[in-house]
Amino acid sequence: MRTRLTNIAQLVAVPPGPVSGPTLSCPPIFRDAALVIEDAKIAWFGSATDAPQGPYDKTIDVTGGTVVPGLIDCHTHTVFAGSREEEFVRKIGGAGYLEILEAGGGIRSTMRAVRAASVEQLVAASLPRLQRMLASGTTTVEIKSGYGLSPEEEIKMLRAVRAVGERLPIEVVPTYLAAHALPPEFDGRPDAYIAAVTEDALLRRIADEKLAEFADVFTERGAFTVEQSRRFLEACARHGLVPKVHAEQITQSGATQLAVELGAASADHLECVDDSDIAALKASRTIPVLLPGCTFFLGTPAAPARKLIDAGLPVALATDCNPGSSMIESLPLVMSIACTMLKMTPVECLVACTANAAAALKRQHRIGAIAVGHQADLLILDVTNVNAWPYRVGVQAVRTVIKQGRVLQT
Amino acid sequence: MRTRLTNIAQLVAVPPGPVSGPTLSCPPIFRDAALVIEDAKIAWFGSATDAPQGPYDKTIDVTGGTVVPGLIDCHTHTVFAGSREEEFVRKIGGAGYLEILEAGGGIRSTMRAVRAASVEQLVAASLPRLQRMLASGTTTVEIKSGYGLSPEEEIKMLRAVRAVGERLPIEVVPTYLAAHALPPEFDGRPDAYIAAVTEDALLRRIADEKLAEFADVFTERGAFTVEQSRRFLEACARHGLVPKVHAEQITQSGATQLAVELGAASADHLECVDDSDIAALKASRTIPVLLPGCTFFLGTPAAPARKLIDAGLPVALATDCNPGSSMIESLPLVMSIACTMLKMTPVECLVACTANAAAALKRQHRIGAIAVGHQADLLILDVTNVNAWPYRVGVQAVRTVIKQGRVLQT
Repeated sequence: MRTRLTNIAQLVAVPPGPVSGPTLSCPPIFRDAALVIEDAKIAWFGSATDAPQGPYDKTIDVTGGTVVPGLIDCHTHTVFAGSREEEFVRKIGGAGYLEILEAGGGIRSTMRAVRAASVEQLVAASLPRLQRMLASGTTTVEIKSGYGLSPEEEIKMLRAVRAVGERLPIEVVPTYLAAHALPPEFDGRPDAYIAAVTEDALLRRIADEKLAEFADVFTERGAFTVEQSRRFLEACARHGLVPKVHAEQITQSGATQLAVELGAASADHLECVDDSDIAALKASRTIPVLLPGCTFFLGTPAAPARKLIDAGLPVALATDCNPGSSMIESLPLVMSIACTMLKMTPVECLVACTANAAAALKRQHRIGAIAVGHQADLLILDVTNVNAWPYRVGVQAVRTVIKQGRVLQT
Repeated sequence: MRTRLTNIAQLVAVPPGPVSGPTLSCPPIFRDAALVIEDAKIAWFGSATDAPQGPYDKTIDVTGGTVVPGLIDCHTHTVFAGSREEEFVRKIGGAGYLEILEAGGGIRSTMRAVRAASVEQLVAASLPRLQRMLASGTTTVEIKSGYGLSPEEEIKMLRAVRAVGERLPIEVVPTYLAAHALPPEFDGRPDAYIAAVTEDALLRRIADEKLAEFADVFTERGAFTVEQSRRFLEACARHGLVPKVHAEQITQSGATQLAVELGAASADHLECVDDSDIAALKASRTIPVLLPGCTFFLGTPAAPARKLIDAGLPVALATDCNPGSSMIESLPLVMSIACTMLKMTPVECLVACTANAAAALKRQHRIGAIAVGHQADLLILDVTNVNAWPYRVGVQAVRTVIKQGRVLQT
C-alpha cells in the first residue's frame, strides 16, 4: 500500500526527539510539499517538485492545508470516574487545597468514584474523552493509574487503561502511579503504603501482564517525600517500569534531582524548578514536561518555559488531563495556552507535543517526527501554516487524522 | 405551536438584565424542570411536577441535560478579512504594540485586508466564524465595523455585517466603530478624521439604512482622546446611534466617565479601571463589559472582575473576537477563562453572557433571560449542571440550540 499526500501548503518536518536549541524553535519546514506513506511508515517527504514517481494506490489531496506529526499527550490522568465541578467552583471562591481535602474533595474524591466503578464503567466514562482527544489530533496518549490507591484498585485502573486503548485507534501508554496520594486506610503511615504498593508479587503481576510501562510518583508536601519516591520508583524499576516524577509543582522538593539520578524518562510540572534543577536536567536525558493547562486551570504561576528552552532543554508539553487540576483534553488548546502564558511559539509548542513528548515516552525512534521510516501518524490541518493553529484559540483545525498510515476521519 | 421541554436536570432561570448583587451569583435554579414554548416565546417554566397540561405539538426530551438562555456575545469584531498569526508570533517573542505597528501590523494590517475585500468576500471570510459561534451557543452577536476606516469602507463593513446576519439564524447587532484607529491618510490629523466619519450625510445614511444601532470608539493613547471620543459619540447619538466605549484597556483615560456621562449602553474592557470609574458606573445604567479572552490572548493583566461584582455592578462578558488581540470565537471558552483568571463562578459567567450582555445591547426586555414572554432563545447542554460547563474547558457541551423557539441543531 503506497499513499501520496499532495498539495501540502506547509509540511513541518519535526525531526526525531529529543529536540532542543535552534531546531526546537526552527525545525525544517517545506512549502508546496508532498509526502509518501508506504506500509504504515513515512517513506518520503519534501518539495512537491522532487516527489518520486508513482504508481500510488491512493492520493490524498491536502488542498493547501498543513501537515504535522500526530500529537502525543505524554502526561494524563484521563481514565477516571466522577466529576469535580463543585470543587472547581470552591477553588474559584478561594478555597485552598487543605480546605477542599477536608471537605472530602481532591484526589480522594475521585478515588471513591473510581473504587465504586467497574472496569467497564471506567472505560465507558473515559472513552468519550479519548475520542475527543483523537479528534483534536492526539494519536498517542499516556494514561496514569493513581485513583485506585490500593493494589487491587490500581490493577483495576490499569486494566481500564488497557481496555480504552483496545477500543480506539489511539496508542495508549500505561503508567503505574500508585504513589499519587495516600489513601485513608494508610493515614499517617505513608511508608507502609509505599511498601504495600511495591510488594514484589504485585509488581511482578504488573510486569508480567504488561499492565504498565512507566512508574510515576507525586513528590510533594502532603504527598510523598523524595525518599519515599525513591523507594517506590526503585522497586518499580526492578520490574522494568521506567521512572517518571511529578516534580516541583507546588514547592521545590528535590524531585527533579531524584528523577535525573534515577534516569527517569521525564520530570513533569516543574513550576517551581530552580537553577540547580535546570543544570541537573541539562546533564541528563530526562525530558522536562510542562503542563500549562494545569496552571491555567488553577490560576497559579506557570513553569519558566523560556528559561528551560533557553538553557537548551528539550521541553515537552502535555494536557495533564484530570478532574481536579486540569479538566482539559485538547492538546491544541494547551498549545494556545503555552503560546500566551508560557511565551512559547506555535512551532516550539508543536515540537514539544510531538518529538519531545515521544522522548518522554521513550518512543522517539518510532513516533513524534516526520522522518523516513517513522510511523505514519500525521495530521492534516485546515490552516495554511502552523502558526495559525494555536492562534485560532479553541477552533478545531484538524481535518484528518492519519494513524499508522490509515485515515481515521475526513 | 406549543413545544414542551421535559426531563431537564437543571434549568438556570436567569432573570432579565441587568442582574447584579446576590442574584448575579445565585439566580433561581430549578431541578427536574420543564419549560413550555408558545409562538417562539417562553410561556411557562418551573418544576416538572407543576407543568401545565397539554396538548403539545412537540415534546423535546432533554434527557437529564441542563437548559440555559442562549448566549449573547455583546462585543466582537468578527467580520474581517486576512489573518494575523505572524503578529501573534512576534508578540510571543516580546514585540510591543509600536514595533508591530511600524512593521505594518496591528489594526492597519486588517484595514488593508478589509479594504481589498468586497462585501461578498468579507461575508465569506466571516460566515464560518459565525457558524462556529452559533454551534457553541451564541444566539445573538454584536459585530463592529472599524477596519474600513473611511466613510465608504465603513459602510461596506456594515453592509457585510448585515449580510452575515441575513445568512444565519443568529441575531446580529451592528455597531459603527469608525473611531477604532487613525487610518494612514489622516496621520497626524485625528480631528480631521473624526470630522470625516461624523459627516452629517454619512451618519444620516447609516441611520436611514439602519446599518448600525450603536456607535463605538477606542479611547486610548495612540487612538482617540476623550474629547475626540465625545465628539464622535455625540455626533452619532444625534442620529440615534447609542454610545459604547472601549474604555481603560491599556491606560486609565477617563473613558468610563465619558461613557457614563453620555449614557452609553456599555463601557468595555476596563482592565485599568479605578475606584472613581467604579463609582461612576455604579451611579449609571452603563453596563461594564469585560473581555478576558483579550487579556488571555495578550498575556496582560485581567480586569478586576470581583471588585466590580462586589461593588454591585452587572458585569457582562464578551469574546472581543478579533484578529489582533483575541482570536477567540467561543463564549463558553471565555467563560472558562473568566472562571480561572477573573475568579468568576460558572453561574456568574452565565448571567454575564446572557442577561447582562443583553442589557449591554439594550435587549434585556426581549432576550438573555428565562422569563415568561421572553424570546425562546435556549441551549440544551450535555451536562447535568451548569458548573460542569466551563469546568470542562474546550469541550463542546451544547447539544441543541433553540432560536426563537426553533430547534437549530441536535
